[in-house]
Amino acid sequence: MQPNVVAHPEWAAEGTQRIDWVRRNMPILRQLEEEFRAQQPLAGKRVVVSVHLEAKTAYLALVLRAGGAEVAVTGSNPESTKDDVVAALAEEGLHLYARHGATPEEMRRYMGLALDLSPHLVIDDGGDLVELLHERPELLPDVIGACEETTSGVMRARARARAGQLAFPVLLINEARCKYLFDNVHGTGQSVWDGVMRATNLVVAGKTVVVIGYGWCGKGVATRAQGLGARVIVCEVDPVKAADALMNGCQVMPLLEACPQADLVLTVTGIRHTLRPEHLAALRDNTLLANAGHFWDEIDVTHLRSEAVECRPLRTHVEGFRMPDGRWLHLLGGGNIVNISCADGHPAEIMDTSFALQALSVRHLAEHGASLPPDAHLVPEAIDQRVAELKLAGSRIRIDTLTPDQVAYRDGWEA
Amino acid sequence: MQPNVVAHPEWAAEGTQRIDWVRRNMPILRQLEEEFRAQQPLAGKRVVVSVHLEAKTAYLALVLRAGGAEVAVTGSNPESTKDDVVAALAEEGLHLYARHGATPEEMRRYMGLALDLSPHLVIDDGGDLVELLHERPELLPDVIGACEETTSGVMRARARARAGQLAFPVLLINEARCKYLFDNVHGTGQSVWDGVMRATNLVVAGKTVVVIGYGWCGKGVATRAQGLGARVIVCEVDPVKAADALMNGCQVMPLLEACPQADLVLTVTGIRHTLRPEHLAALRDNTLLANAGHFWDEIDVTHLRSEAVECRPLRTHVEGFRMPDGRWLHLLGGGNIVNISCADGHPAEIMDTSFALQALSVRHLAEHGASLPPDAHLVPEAIDQRVAELKLAGSRIRIDTLTPDQVAYRDGWEA
Amino acid sequence: MQPNVVAHPEWAAEGTQRIDWVRRNMPILRQLEEEFRAQQPLAGKRVVVSVHLEAKTAYLALVLRAGGAEVAVTGSNPESTKDDVVAALAEEGLHLYARHGATPEEMRRYMGLALDLSPHLVIDDGGDLVELLHERPELLPDVIGACEETTSGVMRARARARAGQLAFPVLLINEARCKYLFDNVHGTGQSVWDGVMRATNLVVAGKTVVVIGYGWCGKGVATRAQGLGARVIVCEVDPVKAADALMNGCQVMPLLEACPQADLVLTVTGIRHTLRPEHLAALRDNTLLANAGHFWDEIDVTHLRSEAVECRPLRTHVEGFRMPDGRWLHLLGGGNIVNISCADGHPAEIMDTSFALQALSVRHLAEHGASLPPDAHLVPEAIDQRVAELKLAGSRIRIDTLTPDQVAYRDGWEA
Amino acid sequence: MQPNVVAHPEWAAEGTQRIDWVRRNMPILRQLEEEFRAQQPLAGKRVVVSVHLEAKTAYLALVLRAGGAEVAVTGSNPESTKDDVVAALAEEGLHLYARHGATPEEMRRYMGLALDLSPHLVIDDGGDLVELLHERPELLPDVIGACEETTSGVMRARARARAGQLAFPVLLINEARCKYLFDNVHGTGQSVWDGVMRATNLVVAGKTVVVIGYGWCGKGVATRAQGLGARVIVCEVDPVKAADALMNGCQVMPLLEACPQADLVLTVTGIRHTLRPEHLAALRDNTLLANAGHFWDEIDVTHLRSEAVECRPLRTHVEGFRMPDGRWLHLLGGGNIVNISCADGHPAEIMDTSFALQALSVRHLAEHGASLPPDAHLVPEAIDQRVAELKLAGSRIRIDTLTPDQVAYRDGWEA
Repeated sequence: MQPNVVAHPEWAAEGTQRIDWVRRNMPILRQLEEEFRAQQPLAGKRVVVSVHLEAKTAYLALVLRAGGAEVAVTGSNPESTKDDVVAALAEEGLHLYARHGATPEEMRRYMGLALDLSPHLVIDDGGDLVELLHERPELLPDVIGACEETTSGVMRARARARAGQLAFPVLLINEARCKYLFDNVHGTGQSVWDGVMRATNLVVAGKTVVVIGYGWCGKGVATRAQGLGARVIVCEVDPVKAADALMNGCQVMPLLEACPQADLVLTVTGIRHTLRPEHLAALRDNTLLANAGHFWDEIDVTHLRSEAVECRPLRTHVEGFRMPDGRWLHLLGGGNIVNISCADGHPAEIMDTSFALQALSVRHLAEHGASLPPDAHLVPEAIDQRVAELKLAGSRIRIDTLTPDQVAYRDGWEA
Repeated sequence: MQPNVVAHPEWAAEGTQRIDWVRRNMPILRQLEEEFRAQQPLAGKRVVVSVHLEAKTAYLALVLRAGGAEVAVTGSNPESTKDDVVAALAEEGLHLYARHGATPEEMRRYMGLALDLSPHLVIDDGGDLVELLHERPELLPDVIGACEETTSGVMRARARARAGQLAFPVLLINEARCKYLFDNVHGTGQSVWDGVMRATNLVVAGKTVVVIGYGWCGKGVATRAQGLGARVIVCEVDPVKAADALMNGCQVMPLLEACPQADLVLTVTGIRHTLRPEHLAALRDNTLLANAGHFWDEIDVTHLRSEAVECRPLRTHVEGFRMPDGRWLHLLGGGNIVNISCADGHPAEIMDTSFALQALSVRHLAEHGASLPPDAHLVPEAIDQRVAELKLAGSRIRIDTLTPDQVAYRDGWEA
Repeated sequence: MQPNVVAHPEWAAEGTQRIDWVRRNMPILRQLEEEFRAQQPLAGKRVVVSVHLEAKTAYLALVLRAGGAEVAVTGSNPESTKDDVVAALAEEGLHLYARHGATPEEMRRYMGLALDLSPHLVIDDGGDLVELLHERPELLPDVIGACEETTSGVMRARARARAGQLAFPVLLINEARCKYLFDNVHGTGQSVWDGVMRATNLVVAGKTVVVIGYGWCGKGVATRAQGLGARVIVCEVDPVKAADALMNGCQVMPLLEACPQADLVLTVTGIRHTLRPEHLAALRDNTLLANAGHFWDEIDVTHLRSEAVECRPLRTHVEGFRMPDGRWLHLLGGGNIVNISCADGHPAEIMDTSFALQALSVRHLAEHGASLPPDAHLVPEAIDQRVAELKLAGSRIRIDTLTPDQVAYRDGWEA
Repeated sequence: MQPNVVAHPEWAAEGTQRIDWVRRNMPILRQLEEEFRAQQPLAGKRVVVSVHLEAKTAYLALVLRAGGAEVAVTGSNPESTKDDVVAALAEEGLHLYARHGATPEEMRRYMGLALDLSPHLVIDDGGDLVELLHERPELLPDVIGACEETTSGVMRARARARAGQLAFPVLLINEARCKYLFDNVHGTGQSVWDGVMRATNLVVAGKTVVVIGYGWCGKGVATRAQGLGARVIVCEVDPVKAADALMNGCQVMPLLEACPQADLVLTVTGIRHTLRPEHLAALRDNTLLANAGHFWDEIDVTHLRSEAVECRPLRTHVEGFRMPDGRWLHLLGGGNIVNISCADGHPAEIMDTSFALQALSVRHLAEHGASLPPDAHLVPEAIDQRVAELKLAGSRIRIDTLTPDQVAYRDGWEA
């Protein structure tokens, strides 16, 4: 196997502390760790993980290892990689290839090194690893399947499947209810505001917040903005989602009309150049700009940077751009996803459900993947139910089950 | 055609006033009415409508008639039928078979009379009309298809389809986003509280409200309860929905544990006898009971009535039951769906989206139904989009469209 | 004593049922009724009550009677007087002078008849009774004091006191925390929406609601609008209150700017002609107008009526006005306070706290009023605390008390 | 004058950047800075400021200096003092006496050094500076008055006044509406959650949060918790506040009953040892503890520390305590006020209103203080209004004024 790439092996103790903290707050994974250790469902399997490489991902990797797997880990975004966590995982004996601030070329190289493990199973976040796998046909015979974490990767996997160019089954974690109902709505919803508050030390109440995109993530971001006292304007191209935003107390209008009213603009679209030159020109002095979508270029930062007559740091994670007409625009986290660039990403309990889906889906692939066609697949409903049950148990919550009479009644309709 | 059944022809003026009011507040249907009048998409078609027969449904029937159809109308629930609206529609020349307070036998007979029209198309709410149609094979050759309004009817249609016993295509209106996002969440969500407040003149703030069932309707009911200042406990058998409720600020627990804490219990499950004897025994003195689900027996009213040592009206739509141990339980609207039995049902603008889906789906069936297999079908996405666009237009709201660049970018993933 | 004025003595049974219902839901007054019956704090006292004469007020009058008082009751607003409740109280042996729909002259005459009782104590709502008392100096020697329910009456009492023209002490119920925190915020806040929903059967979610006035009542109305899914614009002349509205997620702007955005305008100012001709001219077609303030003329209904080219009822409690330019404006409840004209006024539990303050304040006056100077007085803090304690007890809620250590610590600062 | 105490003069550039950032976001103070510079209302005055010494306070000090004052600055809490800001202010030429992490003795000594300026005016936060002034009678003849920022200092000033031991007038900034409506509710309300999220990277939604104390600050903290998706239990000794919490959707119960349900406990009482040994014993494993009140010992940290069998850092600002029974309790920020110890304190725009009150009150004292008796005084209503007007202007918001007719109408009641 390839030798590790670890920038700061001496930071392992800090990384271990971080992992210990999230373990305390990820009761579902703790339960699965025990189960995996006892049952060894991944014995003999090689697994590559490429997800934002911080403490929560590290714990997932350790759970997979506890299940018997040999695990290689690389990051999915150079900004989110925590070198102390990398060091801690390496010390635990996993294969590590990652570095905070890596260049795109390095990122690609690290993924390649990880894939040199010749994995049976991969966990991907955005689809890059799956793409690279398809470029290395010699690896494909061993691959049982992949699990994909996010919307963007889901779109790519589906496109490949439609084109008949998917070489193995991909489980779409993002489409499970236990993923988007919690991770997208509440994970993104909260952590974006954690990032904004941390970066700016400004108040949300009383502000006019423009949220572009009202998918599950945008809805979470908008709901939390309302809960923090903001007035929310939503800009959305899908009329059904736009109407949904309206009915949830948001104003809805075209972006260009919203811009001059904004105190803060947040992009949550998955579309490059959502906030374009004409919008930047329509903003008022002192407007805050942040991105909560997957791609760093939802805001046209390149234009902003080239157009500005002055550009300087105003606070950690806040850059000020003085435009030719004198207005200052304030960009958070360089336009990178704000909950990761300006805060610590999704809360631990949120990743607990998402990663429990991952762990059980990897197990499902290990056990049943051979019989699955090379297509994009939904996570089995039983896994979704199991994760929710574990989540409730972890919160010390019990629920009812239907009585036999009620089941019969319900099934009567179906008979 | 069968002669009309109209209990109070002399009330037509009141009915017309009611219909006029909802017309003013249903801009989407107004738009479709004009379109239908100009294009006559239903010319020569016979349509039977069986939906809660009040003003909003009446307007839908008039829109269908404007599109060229011959229309017969009957109710779907004897409590919701408004005799003045029946009279007004009859005066307009439609075929009417309905009476407030009809017995189950009468209801069935009225449906039969309506079906004597030998319909090409039917609009159903709960599935009874579709069942009756299947009992009259002589009518089936003319039937192009049906549209089904609610969850319960959707379940029945799907069961028939699975069993290979569906004789014509059924469009599942309830599964369209423009239906459940608005009608179930906001229509039920608001009107249930309209009914509770109107029936009781009691405050919601500060109360402990137990909501049983956290589907789209239950979620709407719970959200509005929070918005009115209540503490909400959710009881739910699906662990994913239970976890969703938890993340939205509700407490989650088994029903029997929730009962002694309740000031008000609301059933929203679609399951008979959701609130059973053991639950009734666990409630405190003075607890309010109401049902917001489709069926009147989600609360075991029969048991309540037989167990009580005294039972008397305490206020219009509120009955008091004195239990053997001295506790009083207060039942709203006799256990019938509270927004209809104690208030005027869903708001007009909400039914505007639901019935726009119906009108466009009926048109779709008229135009394309012959080529659809006899199965349960989703409403075409284009209809959903169109309704949302009309809703936004009716609210004087414009939205953006993606630029060609953005479309290319998005489709890049899909290429 | 003057013979009763009771329009419909035959409706007493309905009135008794109404009173029974509120008694079940007013645990604080129930507790005080027992206490008053046992202790007879009002023995030998004559009390005149002039408050919205419906079931909750009736129960207050009965509690005072239970305390030993001879009680005369008249209404404070002809629209809110319930003839069945009047009949029920008369049957109970109280002196009654009231009729639904009384003319202003009749109202004044009824108050005069009530005052012929030559009261020791009066409960007033708006200050009219106190004014009339000052016009009859022969009655003043017997008067111990008065309790005033609302903001408007508080202003008049204070004005009299400042001018040295107040002949007896007035306790300002409205200024007690247990009044405005519950009655103004939650009582008005909820019941206004009860009235709007009942009158219109329209949805609140997705609407733009303009609330004029952000005092305690306006704040309650705005908060509930948000809780029901509306976007709220607040118009307010006090900059501090305006800024408070802003920080609570409302938009703030001048009224004329808000009008063209409104789906519904609500006046909550206590100022005549808040909504004037220029505002009416700026509204869109189909806008709803309602008043939630004390005075019927906060909306310039006279102008509306004279300007309209057509005016007709559109639904019970909704009048449509067609303006010369073709726009329709929809007025709720004739411009009278919407929670009373279109619904049943404040919830019972809310009036339970307000009227508990009244009952204990009347008792306080009976016991200590002779030593109070003729001025406007705050309700003693001990009464406020007592009412809150009873409210918590009625909701089966216990709270902590400070430990001796903590009291010493707190008092350390004060020593 | 005494030589400066500045720990890190080399950090001035960072401090200047911080001050520059808040200046951009404090439009009211910017406006007052211009005004003060032009009018020199503090010319010849010596002012001592003792408030949490970070960027926002620094900007206030600079505004006072712009108004002509000679200014000495010291901190009010060793944890909140930012050494880079101290350095920046010193470089600006103000007198500085502060150091992050100072001991109580040092704190007292620094205050003494600042007072050596022999101030005409002081700005205090908690009352320590005012206490020290009274211990140095030689300084009193020059003192015109003081402004007090917080509840705790207000209580002390009032106690002194009652005892006849206040030597100069004190303006109670905290009692101005523009203070408590914004600073206490929204400033504390938001920043506490900023601190909790930053310290823990945990989710708030779905948690049971116990808030002890429902004053303005506690209400803000509880409201934001609800807005972030938590279920909130309030513990409060004042029955009126407890009832208010109940009506705002919180559960209310004694603390000991709440403890076993808590995921997070927040003290906001101003009372030492609010969370005592018996409560700590009743908490579940993994409970988070944080303090949002003025004093670091609202949680009995001393007991926690002595009782624990193990105590170790789990994450920056989180300490884990293993209790003898095996439970872990997680303390945030060492029990110090969590928004300052774990985040950056109140948002800039919030301090903009609070410090505008300070600046205008200092000016008021400079101009009129000589004629004020040595008592605790409310801030003049005109200052409150002015600050609110400036706040609205800073948010580009206009509001209406009453018409002459409306004023006459309103005053009619008062005539």
